[in-house]
Amino acid sequence: MKLIHFLIPLLAATPASCAGESDGVTKFRLFNYTDTGGPLNWYGLDPVANEACGKGNNQSPIDIDTNAIEYAPAGALKFTLPAIDGVHIENLGFGLDVTLKNGTLEVNNKIYNMVQFHFHTPAEHHVNHEHYPMEVHFVFQTPENETAVVGFFFQLSDTSKTPPLFESVFSRIAEIADPGSSSTTGLLDFQELTAHLDQNRIYQYTGSFTTPPCTEGVAWYLSAEPLPLDVKTYNAVKMVVKFNARYIQNVLGRENLLGIAMRHL
Amino acid sequence: MKLIHFLIPLLAATPASCAGESDGVTKFRLFNYTDTGGPLNWYGLDPVANEACGKGNNQSPIDIDTNAIEYAPAGALKFTLPAIDGVHIENLGFGLDVTLKNGTLEVNNKIYNMVQFHFHTPAEHHVNHEHYPMEVHFVFQTPENETAVVGFFFQLSDTSKTPPLFESVFSRIAEIADPGSSSTTGLLDFQELTAHLDQNRIYQYTGSFTTPPCTEGVAWYLSAEPLPLDVKTYNAVKMVVKFNARYIQNVLGRENLLGIAMRHL
Repeated sequence: MKLIHFLIPLLAATPASCAGESDGVTKFRLFNYTDTGGPLNWYGLDPVANEACGKGNNQSPIDIDTNAIEYAPAGALKFTLPAIDGVHIENLGFGLDVTLKNGTLEVNNKIYNMVQFHFHTPAEHHVNHEHYPMEVHFVFQTPENETAVVGFFFQLSDTSKTPPLFESVFSRIAEIADPGSSSTTGLLDFQELTAHLDQNRIYQYTGSFTTPPCTEGVAWYLSAEPLPLDVKTYNAVKMVVKFNARYIQNVLGRENLLGIAMRHL
Repeated sequence: MKLIHFLIPLLAATPASCAGESDGVTKFRLFNYTDTGGPLNWYGLDPVANEACGKGNNQSPIDIDTNAIEYAPAGALKFTLPAIDGVHIENLGFGLDVTLKNGTLEVNNKIYNMVQFHFHTPAEHHVNHEHYPMEVHFVFQTPENETAVVGFFFQLSDTSKTPPLFESVFSRIAEIADPGSSSTTGLLDFQELTAHLDQNRIYQYTGSFTTPPCTEGVAWYLSAEPLPLDVKTYNAVKMVVKFNARYIQNVLGRENLLGIAMRHL
């Protein structure tokens, strides 16, 4: 376990200018999910940088109506992540990020490069008003900074095993209980995940980052079929990640919910 | 299973004047947890009736800091619920209410009468920024309409059994999957729950209802030790209750979070 410089914004009056890196590993996350550092006030933390959080009209996460959402055409996504051993995993405070530069997503003749993947407990997107206990986001970007996210839901199961890939991701999670600490994963083999994506329907829509600066134009692809998750892994991840789900935004294209809420206040 | 008149407010522009009963069982719940019917806009649904939702300064739920919260003195709560068979359980849409008029809570020489208990998935209160997958609220009122709520968290477990009381509550949950449907519970024996409350520490604070009209002055008592919950019961309850947790409010006594959020918009 390696402790690195880290700042949790318990004094949320401090203006946030999103994540910063000074020595390549030092990261500042000036938002959280509690009090005035939480999602309602992300815009207030920095109205310039985080303008989309408070004024954007295509914000994520959304409540997916399975009868109304668009589905990706079969075979539309080429999710290519080569097996890799010992990847950097870091507790960012309300987040658990795995840095992974090796891999691509190809969709509609566009190639995005793998950046990182991370976890949310509970899941951020809802499906027909219901929520899952956990969601993982694989974040990809083009050299022009266009972003695509491939997401998977997890459903608790006492009959199916957590996919070995995620057991490997969380193999040393007890070492990174403290925000700012980091470790390495075990061997990550993505074949089972790629097969899962190929064999199941995929919800698709264009939304935003679910964290500041809430940038829009993000291409979302979410597997409709959840992955299994065992209770021990769930409890261990939840204890480290804490609650880190943004509230559900309203229908895509409609006024930002905060704007609607304040109109009456 | 009995289907009753019921209205889910998918057209949230309709003003809400809290729950209404016309024939004793018909209930209208004009708020929900999605889109403009959700917590951010509860005030907007009815600025008069729901004023506290948008302007109250002692709102619930809160993030409990276990080092700062007050604890109830040992033995301060007398939670007296006699065993009872076949109680009315109803799916209100984003809520599962068990009507129970038999029982009392005595605290500080004040006697509150049992009204009902209901469930939230995920849990509404957080503890040191972490959340539990489910929370139950036992709602009590004095003849003068003072309210106290006794709450318990649930933690998923694959080694401990769900308390038989709650297995009995949920014994016919598959029958009440549809909002507006109702059924009856099995035998409810509260002895194990009373013992749990007596044997563990209890967080206490004065907050509000976590649903419209968000009335303040509610005496909250939350058992610090979660109850175990098995995966099958959790998934069944989550599927029926849907996501029904209000976002975390800020520190008690401080300006309503919505007010802070809109100051910058």
